[in-house]
Amino acid sequence: MIEGNSLSYAVLGTGALGGLYGGLLAHSGCDVHFLLRSDYEHVRQHGLQIESPLGNFHLPQVQCYESATAMPSVDVVIVAWKTTANSALPHALEQICDPHSVVLVLQNGWDVESLAAQSVGAERVLGGCCFLCCNKIGPGHIQHLDFGHIVFGEYAQVLSGAVTPRMAAIAKDFQSAGIKMEPTTNLSTARWRKLMWNIPYNGLSVVLDADTQQLMQDSHGAALVQLLMREVQQIATQRGSAIEDSFIDKLLDDTRRMVPYDSSMRLDYLARRPMEVDAIFGSPLRAAHAVKCYPQQLQMLYHQLCFLDRQNREATAVADSEASAQDPHEG
Amino acid sequence: MIEGNSLSYAVLGTGALGGLYGGLLAHSGCDVHFLLRSDYEHVRQHGLQIESPLGNFHLPQVQCYESATAMPSVDVVIVAWKTTANSALPHALEQICDPHSVVLVLQNGWDVESLAAQSVGAERVLGGCCFLCCNKIGPGHIQHLDFGHIVFGEYAQVLSGAVTPRMAAIAKDFQSAGIKMEPTTNLSTARWRKLMWNIPYNGLSVVLDADTQQLMQDSHGAALVQLLMREVQQIATQRGSAIEDSFIDKLLDDTRRMVPYDSSMRLDYLARRPMEVDAIFGSPLRAAHAVKCYPQQLQMLYHQLCFLDRQNREATAVADSEASAQDPHEG
Repeated sequence: MIEGNSLSYAVLGTGALGGLYGGLLAHSGCDVHFLLRSDYEHVRQHGLQIESPLGNFHLPQVQCYESATAMPSVDVVIVAWKTTANSALPHALEQICDPHSVVLVLQNGWDVESLAAQSVGAERVLGGCCFLCCNKIGPGHIQHLDFGHIVFGEYAQVLSGAVTPRMAAIAKDFQSAGIKMEPTTNLSTARWRKLMWNIPYNGLSVVLDADTQQLMQDSHGAALVQLLMREVQQIATQRGSAIEDSFIDKLLDDTRRMVPYDSSMRLDYLARRPMEVDAIFGSPLRAAHAVKCYPQQLQMLYHQLCFLDRQNREATAVADSEASAQDPHEG
Repeated sequence: MIEGNSLSYAVLGTGALGGLYGGLLAHSGCDVHFLLRSDYEHVRQHGLQIESPLGNFHLPQVQCYESATAMPSVDVVIVAWKTTANSALPHALEQICDPHSVVLVLQNGWDVESLAAQSVGAERVLGGCCFLCCNKIGPGHIQHLDFGHIVFGEYAQVLSGAVTPRMAAIAKDFQSAGIKMEPTTNLSTARWRKLMWNIPYNGLSVVLDADTQQLMQDSHGAALVQLLMREVQQIATQRGSAIEDSFIDKLLDDTRRMVPYDSSMRLDYLARRPMEVDAIFGSPLRAAHAVKCYPQQLQMLYHQLCFLDRQNREATAVADSEASAQDPHEG
């Protein structure tokens, strides 16, 4: 990784999230290489179209690839597809990474960096939590609605506690591209804070077939959200990430003030796509068990979602894992 | 209550359960008075039609009433409507009961006898758990499919521990009518045993939109069922009703062997009728809290069902409480 100039990037998964962040980086002059599947031919011919409060723009020519095999090695590999597409990750990293490359995992869930860490080593992996409201509304066509900032940090325990030079270099590129990129010296705590929103709202929106407003306007819905938030807070505490009580009130208030919002998990469910149950529920549950914490409500929600996910996928002959790039990626 | 001869009966709610048991009692020669709402005119003209493995029969003329006000006082008042229709109970009992009458509550749930006890005194109330697979398939037309036995006992603590003479007299009438009527000296334990089935299968069938077979064939569905059964077992133990572990295995095995079955709560939900959430979930939860037991999975299921019940009822302009008589009543 050469510092000073901007870095080179590979974007794995050019959906709402990868298309927006990668598009903004490319628009600002960075060297960005996009991996695509279903949209490859369209984007190769027509480029990327971005609508955003940051300004609309069109990238008529982007460096795009149908397979990781053809991609050059880069400074930073951004993992931007959903965890449900992760089976392709080890092969892709093997193709794209050289010994100086780092991997920035922008997925939802707990310990989502571990698969990349197995491929390239933990000390070459960073993780980020995205707070983003964005849809892919057509092939290569991204509609950024609101928010967009990223909280990111080093994955390896030995590197956490400080903002490393490579974090500063990445943040500089993102900031130049108009993306608020906030370094954290404690990625674990940032992940648990994000899960305090994702676990109740993603999970309950599917099980109760409701958007955020329906959940919050009903006393039982709001009670469930709070019970789950407190359970996640407790797991985080047990794992050394103390989160203040007032953060729960803030999350509840913020969500009450949001426009009615369908979580990405609910959209996946309704479209009969696989849901990110393992990353957002299974992995936090295992992390809790590892410290002898037994969150019964999270466990119940996990089983419920596994059940619904399986019923849903049995109902469709073909689970289109590629479709993971076709829906909003939320914050 | 005169012993020796058969007793006189009033049946509150002539749906699947009330129509079958009341019809069998009348068919065997008992003096039975039926309270009806939507089916009153049809039954007054055409009587009751019963199809049953015990033998099909038609009662061309039944003593039927549109209002409790017109009914005579009887020895035994059978409460056979769903708990969601209970707001009419105090008035009905006031009309039908004289000082010698007893009330036999055949509803699902915990402490469902308490409302009758408030009207006539606990020592005049009995409760029964029905194990019955039966549908009302048209006005006054009952289709009994399977099972049918009742486990019943005294509600008042002071009378429990023995088979009272009035229990023997009621059992004699039911047995003569072909109904297996099993006295218990511990109604509480019988209720908790029934709830060990009702809580998981009624609740999960609604939240997960699944029949018994779908729940049992999926490892996550079966895990949820077991977790909930164990929680109910724990509440029962805390309340002095120890239930052996092997009973859980028996319930699971029995349900696996059943034909795929839609719980009455799921049918209510699908038909947008009010669900018996309070009797089957809220009341057991309060009973747990009263003995400092905090079943988190039951609590979560309770909140989920309250949420779904409210959404469901908001979706229909008029909640047809009368419809409570129009669906299967399960065991």
